Formats: sequence, C-alpha cells, structure tokens
Amino acid sequence: MELGVGGSNPPCCTNKMKKDKKNKPSKELPLGFVDRSEKELLVRDFIVSNIKGVMIKYGFQYLETPSFEYSDSIGKFLPDKDRPDQGVFSFQDEKKWLSLRYDLTAPLARYVAKNYLEIPKPFKRYQLGTVWRNEKPGPGRYREFLQFDADFVGTKNLQADAELCVMISEILEECGLTKSEYIIKISSRKITEELFKKIKITESQQKLTILRALDKIDRLGWDEVKQLLGKGRKDKSGDFTKGANLSLQDIGVIENELNKQSPDTQDLIEMFKIFKDYDFDNYKFDSTIIRGLEYYTGPIFEVNLKFDVKNNKGQTIQFGSIGGGGRYDNLVNNFGNYDAPATGISIGLDRLVYALMQKKDFKIKQTKPVIICVFDKSLMKEYISLQIILRKAGISTEIYPGEGKLKKQMEYANKIKSPAVILYGEDESKSSKPTLRDLKTGNEKSIEYEELVNEIKKII
Amino acid sequence: MELGVGGSNPPCCTNKMKKDKKNKPSKELPLGFVDRSEKELLVRDFIVSNIKGVMIKYGFQYLETPSFEYSDSIGKFLPDKDRPDQGVFSFQDEKKWLSLRYDLTAPLARYVAKNYLEIPKPFKRYQLGTVWRNEKPGPGRYREFLQFDADFVGTKNLQADAELCVMISEILEECGLTKSEYIIKISSRKITEELFKKIKITESQQKLTILRALDKIDRLGWDEVKQLLGKGRKDKSGDFTKGANLSLQDIGVIENELNKQSPDTQDLIEMFKIFKDYDFDNYKFDSTIIRGLEYYTGPIFEVNLKFDVKNNKGQTIQFGSIGGGGRYDNLVNNFGNYDAPATGISIGLDRLVYALMQKKDFKIKQTKPVIICVFDKSLMKEYISLQIILRKAGISTEIYPGEGKLKKQMEYANKIKSPAVILYGEDESKSSKPTLRDLKTGNEKSIEYEELVNEIKKII
Repeated sequence: MELGVGGSNPPCCTNKMKKDKKNKPSKELPLGFVDRSEKELLVRDFIVSNIKGVMIKYGFQYLETPSFEYSDSIGKFLPDKDRPDQGVFSFQDEKKWLSLRYDLTAPLARYVAKNYLEIPKPFKRYQLGTVWRNEKPGPGRYREFLQFDADFVGTKNLQADAELCVMISEILEECGLTKSEYIIKISSRKITEELFKKIKITESQQKLTILRALDKIDRLGWDEVKQLLGKGRKDKSGDFTKGANLSLQDIGVIENELNKQSPDTQDLIEMFKIFKDYDFDNYKFDSTIIRGLEYYTGPIFEVNLKFDVKNNKGQTIQFGSIGGGGRYDNLVNNFGNYDAPATGISIGLDRLVYALMQKKDFKIKQTKPVIICVFDKSLMKEYISLQIILRKAGISTEIYPGEGKLKKQMEYANKIKSPAVILYGEDESKSSKPTLRDLKTGNEKSIEYEELVNEIKKII
Repeated sequence: MELGVGGSNPPCCTNKMKKDKKNKPSKELPLGFVDRSEKELLVRDFIVSNIKGVMIKYGFQYLETPSFEYSDSIGKFLPDKDRPDQGVFSFQDEKKWLSLRYDLTAPLARYVAKNYLEIPKPFKRYQLGTVWRNEKPGPGRYREFLQFDADFVGTKNLQADAELCVMISEILEECGLTKSEYIIKISSRKITEELFKKIKITESQQKLTILRALDKIDRLGWDEVKQLLGKGRKDKSGDFTKGANLSLQDIGVIENELNKQSPDTQDLIEMFKIFKDYDFDNYKFDSTIIRGLEYYTGPIFEVNLKFDVKNNKGQTIQFGSIGGGGRYDNLVNNFGNYDAPATGISIGLDRLVYALMQKKDFKIKQTKPVIICVFDKSLMKEYISLQIILRKAGISTEIYPGEGKLKKQMEYANKIKSPAVILYGEDESKSSKPTLRDLKTGNEKSIEYEELVNEIKKII
C-alpha cells in the first residue's frame, strides 16, 4: 500500500464519496475539538495582552516556531511515554515524518540548536501557540490547546528559575487574581535524585516508574501510591498497574523524605533566598510535586488556582494546576554538544480562561453595535453617513445588514444584544432628527444630528 | 497494512531509532515552515490589533473554530481541485478522517450549519487563524498561513459586499497605507456566467477550465491565455496544458467582454452606487479578476498592494494580491437546505506583514530591556530592588540573567541591543548612586536613585 502525502486518501476525496451526493457531510466537530465563543476569546485576548506587557517588562524576546517539526526533532522528548506512537499527530512527507508540536519546549530546543551561534546567551524567549495531543477522544479531553511558554536558555543562574515564578505571579495579578487565589508549588528533581541515591535506584526506567507513582499523590493519596511503589495497585475498574517493587523500608524512606516541610537541597535554598529579596512569598514548598516530564534536572514548579471552579455539570471541582515548569539542563544536548542549561514555564491558556470566566468579580466588556434600521432603501445615503459619523466617533455601528422589514430588524437587534437602534424614516428625514431607541429601557428620543454621538455614549 | 491514529509509526518512535543514539535529530525545519522573529510578530500584532478595532467598530462577532475538522465537512469545497487528495493534511481517527483546515470559509459553513437555529441572521463573524496547505514543498512555498476572514452569512444585501471592501480599506489605512498604496479590484461571477450563456457552455468542468485559464491573465498575458482557451499551451519547460477547445469566435467574445471598462451586471452597478454613498473610490472594476475558488456566485474582489516590495533576493517584484473574497450563496447548502447566502473576505496576514515591513516609512517599536549588571552577587538584593523600581515605572529591565563577568555582561547587552546598562558595584553601593551607561552614545552618568527612572526615560 502506498501512502500519499497525508496518509492514504481521505474518504471525502474518493470517487465513491464524490458521486454519493445524498451523503451529507457532518456538521459536527471531531471529539476533542471545540468552537470558541466571543466571550472566551475576549478573556483570552485580555490574558494574552497582560502576558505580552509583562514579557516586555521582563525583557523576554517574542518568538514563534511553526506548528510542524520533523518528528525526529521533537519525538525523543515526547512527554507521554505510555503511548509514544499515538501522542502526536504525524504525517509522512516525502521520505521524512512531520509532527504537529505537542508542546513549545521541544521546538525551542530545536530552535536553539539550529540558531546556536546567532542567539544571545543567555537567550530569553516567550511564545504563544497552539499545541496538539493526539489523545484518545473522550468527554472533556481536548486535543488542541493554546499555551504560553517563557524560557531562559544558556544559564544555570537560579535567579532565572526564581524570576519565572515571580513573573507568572505578576501575570496572574494583572489578570485580576489576588494572592489568595493562586499559589506556586515548588520542589526540585534534586530531591528525588537524592532519594534514588539513598535507596540505591540507578536504572532510569525504574526511576520513571517511581516518579509516575509519586506524581499521583495528589489524585490518589499516599496509601494508593504506596501500592504503586510496592507490588502494584488494582484500581476501581479492576485493572492492575504493576508497581515499582520497592521494599517497605525504601517506601518508608521516600515517605519520610517527602513529608519534610522545608527543602535541604542547595538549589531550593538559594531560590527561596532570591524570593525573599523579591519580597515574593506566594509560593509553597511541596516535595510531592513531581511534574510529568522526564527531562527536568533541578527546581520544578506548578501554578495552582485556589478559587472555586465548576465543571460543565455545575459541580465545584478542585481545578488544580494551570501549568508549571522547571529546570531542564540537558534538553538541547539531544541535538549535539551545546552549552544550553535551561529553565522554563508553561501555562495552559484555555484552562486559565475557563477558570477566570468563573471568577465572581471578573468582567469583560463585550461591545455590540448600535443598529441603524433601514426604513427606506432610498435613504441609504443618509444611513451610510450616519454610520460614518458614529464609527468615526468610535461607536460600534452597523446598518441592518439583512433584507427584512422593521420587525425582523428589531428581532435582529435584540438577538445580537445591541444597546440601541437608530430609527430614521420619513418623519425623521423631514425633521433631520433621528430617533434613538435605548434597547435596555425601551425609551425613545428624537435627537439632533450633532447630539447623536453624545446621547449614544450615555447609554452604551 | 494497519494504520495507527497518525498513519503508520513515525520513525522517531520505532525501537530502531530509540537505540540508535548516534543518530542525532534534525535541527532543520521541514520545507514550507518557518520560525518567525520578534520584529515580524510585532508587525503582525499591530495589524491584528487594527483588525480587531475595525471589527468591533463594524459590529462583527469574534469566533474561533478549531484547527481540525472532519475531512468530509470541509473536503467538498477544496479549492485546489488539481490535487484534491494532497491539498490538505489528513489523519485517520478511529473510523473517520480528520483534516487540518485549509481555509476559514469551509469551517464557517460547517459552523453555520451546526448552529443554524442559534445564530443571529444575518450572522457577521470574523476569525483570525492558521490554515494549512499540504503543497509540494519548494522554495518560498509555505504550507502554513495566518489568515483573517470576515463574512456575512444569511443576506443577499449587496450592502454587505460593499462594506467588506470599505472595511478592508479602513484596516489597511489604520496600518498606515495611503490610498495610492493599495487598490481593491472588483468583478463578478455574474459576468462570466453571462459569458458562458453567450457562448453556450453549460458543463461545469469546462466552465472551470475556462475560469482557470482566465485566472492566469495577470501572470501570462492574453496571448498565452488565448492558447489555454483554445487548443492548449506549451510552457517554457515544454509541458503541454490541454486547452478548453473554444472556437476562435468564442474566444473573441470572451476577450471583447473582458475588455469592458465598466460593468453591466446588476450586482456591480448596485455595489458601485453604494461605494459612492460611502464616498469610497479606491477600487477598480477589472473583469479579468477571477479568484481561484469554484464556489463564488456574485461580486468578487481582490486586494492589491501597489508599493514596491522586494523578494528575498532583493529584486523588486510585483507583489500583487494579499487576499480577496466574494459572494458565495450556496456553500452552506452542502450541509442541507439552509437559507444562508453569504459574502466574505480573506486576507493573508503573513503576506501583509512581509509587505508592510518593506514600506520605507513603516516603523515598529521593539522594546529591549535595560540591563542591571551584576558586579557582586552579595548586592543581589539591591539589584532586585532597582529592577522592581524600574519595572514598576514601566521600563523593560532585567538583571543580567547569565553567570559571566562584566565583559560578558556588556557583550550580552550589546547583543540584545539593550539601550542602557546600570552599573552598581562597590563605589555605587557606598554612594547609593547607580551609574547609568547609555549604550548608544557610551556616556556614563552617576545618578541619584530618585532620578533614575526619569534619566532612563530620556534615553530609551
């Protein structure tokens, strides 16, 4: 079987489908993908504009890499090791494979390797972009996300790691969050590395199994995680997950270590000292923070929201993390021998939008146009000049764009939640005084041309 | 052969590759994809912000559809009929095919069909989004584009078509273009439909062949196009393209018709009258404008830039169109029987960015941070408080984020084009007066803490 550029032929393009005219195309979206409404998009724009403002203030460079990369450029760092082949959307292109990026970090590593001689060192960049995960479709599991990433590449200075936490706090506060509404949880891979030394684990696959188990403390609690560290665990459905086969003693060592209330690794001690100089205290040491990815080498952090969020069934849920990051000193080295120790943070903007929209005191302004009703097509010139005047004054305005009579026009104005309509028929034309109807109160008023802008501004 | 979710296994994920550690991943990008620099992105943001401002003023609703659609939902309207199977990136997902959208119009049609009962009628929406074309890779042929689309759905009112042209002009002028730097070329599918009647062409495949030939007048000139309308044409490489096999007489009728200087179809006569009421005159009737797509049914328009643009070899080129659109009254009907006549416009933002960056008088502000040099790590608390003061005043600032000595720090400051550095060592610490070095002039000045913000604002 020969594969075309995009795999074998999509069914839409086979002759059978072309002829089968009765077979209407689907109006639905594939699972895991959604249409986004104006309100969501305005909230997202508000967040993005705060991000950009803070990024400029902090001296990060704005960069964008493409959606596609060669699969081998980003494939080795695939976060979801359980399903390596299916975690990404991939295409065969001539003789090589392309993949849609599943995060913004792997493309950054590729970018740094490609441009190593030209970039400043350290290199600070931020990126806003969509990432794709070819997850098994299911309710509430999205396969397309908008992410914001900021990274320092080429420095081991822990000032960088600290700044990322301070910076994300500033962004959240610009978005209207108070200190009590979010917290940065911090740990370090050095803690688990020390642990591995203590209990004499050297094999990387076993380390990963242990990290995966620890990563579930939040969700499953310690008792269940202990089973995953030991012989294994049977979940509610009866499925059995093989454990890491540690001895009870080793599990005790781990539990004891992760229960510590303050860090004893050098990196976190230094980082927390920097926080003090920043007068930044909205963080919490939490050694049970693991972060899914394999490539971290030092401090790791997670950004958590603390206010109530409801799921789409209206139930209040523990919303948890909207992102995080950490130090990854060896990632760029996958491309060769580069001196590029790095640290970065990544925020899931769709999740942040979702949470922000539910905050009681959060409001976003959605502007809807004033409608100029069309009484008489022969007056179109007047309607257009009215429209020009209002738009010039910065007022969102439209001449009713359809073909219906006045009743339909009013229905349309109500449907789009227009604040007001302008009526200009025979009478108004004679007196040259348009009628303004406030759609909230229903009040109508005859208004001089020159006063129209002011009167409208009072009611929108 | 069984296909996985993303086709067969990408090579990155096979065991062979995993073991073959010497085989370094590619640092290059696949052909047709590019990294975008800060400067481009800032120009793009500037355009996007102008677009959003105009969209609000004109009363368009902001909407976003996802990157993926079911292939059959968008496949039937594939614009590039020459290579229907390869024009899009497609994946098999469970049992159905998904495709990355190749434009924003087909997803809009799907959206309208899906939400027909809920949307206002007429429905005015705009969208900004990436589209993908799986073109054969080649130099300068991109496979990922950012597009802006605005459409009216549910109205035959030609006021809508006219507004789109006025609106795009307003956007271009907000971006700094003068009337002499762009023009909207306008024609109508009604003209070619009348022509087909005159020369008695009814078969849609032949119509398409003729439209394709006429679409090339701009590039090939009339003489060559006449060959394409007749027996066929051999190009420079010797490749022969079969012609539409029209008689010389019919070709004469076409040439005669397309040479007319003013329209005689009702739709354009009405549209040009509306332009007059708008006092809009930066358009030109040009019946040789065809627009590639098959689905247009009325007025069609094309936005052309008229200022000099250079290609990447430094040669001045005829840059031509940055987008266009037209009326498509039947597209939504592919999903069933909907009353959804529509008209829309689509602008290629990457092309507009490229052109705008070459305009002599076009400038975009790129802010680079003031660098606080690190003389002595023990003074970090002072550096941080300096940084906080400057950032609070809205000045882009960073403490040198690396680990190098002063020489390296200055190299870094120059590399990132920082406007100034702040030096604060032993002497400055004693006097509590930081030294400010203007990196443009090289001037140094000892400055009181309270004066620092003002002094910096003078030189950035």
